[in-house]
Amino acid sequence: MAVKMPVPSPQPSPALFFETINAFQSSVALKAAIELDLFTAISEGAHSAGELARRCKASERGVRVLCDYLVVLGFLTKDQQRYGSTPDSATFLVRTSPAYLGDTTGFLCSTDAMRNYDDLTEVVRNGRRLEESTIAPESPLWVEFARSMSGFMMLPAELIAARLGAAQGPKWKVLDIAAGHGIFGITIARQNPNAEIVALDWPAVLEVAKENAAKFGVAARHRTIAG
Amino acid sequence: MAVKMPVPSPQPSPALFFETINAFQSSVALKAAIELDLFTAISEGAHSAGELARRCKASERGVRVLCDYLVVLGFLTKDQQRYGSTPDSATFLVRTSPAYLGDTTGFLCSTDAMRNYDDLTEVVRNGRRLEESTIAPESPLWVEFARSMSGFMMLPAELIAARLGAAQGPKWKVLDIAAGHGIFGITIARQNPNAEIVALDWPAVLEVAKENAAKFGVAARHRTIAG
Repeated sequence: MAVKMPVPSPQPSPALFFETINAFQSSVALKAAIELDLFTAISEGAHSAGELARRCKASERGVRVLCDYLVVLGFLTKDQQRYGSTPDSATFLVRTSPAYLGDTTGFLCSTDAMRNYDDLTEVVRNGRRLEESTIAPESPLWVEFARSMSGFMMLPAELIAARLGAAQGPKWKVLDIAAGHGIFGITIARQNPNAEIVALDWPAVLEVAKENAAKFGVAARHRTIAG
Repeated sequence: MAVKMPVPSPQPSPALFFETINAFQSSVALKAAIELDLFTAISEGAHSAGELARRCKASERGVRVLCDYLVVLGFLTKDQQRYGSTPDSATFLVRTSPAYLGDTTGFLCSTDAMRNYDDLTEVVRNGRRLEESTIAPESPLWVEFARSMSGFMMLPAELIAARLGAAQGPKWKVLDIAAGHGIFGITIARQNPNAEIVALDWPAVLEVAKENAAKFGVAARHRTIAG
């Protein structure tokens, strides 16, 4: 007796299931491409798998397989064995672009971040938090956050400072609570030399904010949360 | 001086980047829902987070968060705090469905399978294989494969046997090389009592094929690859 498969109308498809259950592969493939700086290499004129392998110091076979997958995902184009960037990839994944987002993978898709999901079934059973580490005092995770996410926050910070009318130069006193990378306060200070910024965070995180303040030529006062 | 963000036309979007870099979360969420047998619970009449939590022996908070995410991904519907299955989920993710695909996660999205991707950047650098374990002699991975993927192969096996005209009952001798779960040969034997099937695989894998043959009431001969 043959198994009768139900065929309701409209006919169900397993496509979403397979796409989702394999989706983790797309995260790590994109992360690998960013770590190899593949998109920057393309922007600098490397287009074949061989040229990219030499520029990225990787194997040609590995680069070809990775690039073909990135074409499928929509991050690259391919024409006559030559890979090209999409407009999105050229804007957000080339290291020299002011809108570069690649650093965010150090926080969003780090091996540690992914490990937090290893045991999701148990997490749902118990209702406990997924990432205890995020709320531990002085957690080094927030240092990585500050380093990884500052570039990503440049544009929103610009828009917020503009919306607040920072460029009109009012004598503001700004308290940047949980400042992290410090980009929100720093951007206000850059647009408004009359603003005094006090950044508040854990000491190790504030070191990143201080680096960013120095990088953008802004003198900033910082308060540690303990201080 | 403000940072000028480039705004080419058409305006680039970071949407694909963020969707992809976070995609691993969707794989593990779906896997957790399958392990909790959430879709089966819904098919049996549990619809609120509280009802589902009791039926799946999980925390209500965890179930609610997971279900809401599954609504976003397109695996569930939500109406008045009550969750429902989509046609796809009802067909492929309810354990009692003949087209159930949930077992495939044991192979496609196991923690071991995901760990193989932990170091993808190095894999691309070196050009070495990602999963050495898949080609190791007697690898237990293929036992898991045989157990996980047999349900998934029922429909293709049915279609292949029908295409071959198995039901017409010719005196076939079928060699099922790398038989795995054995479903392809078993399905031919079920449609054609005159077919003699010889399944070939590693001994531990053949045990799964034998179990499946017994389950479907088919007498099958088996040859180990070493034999």
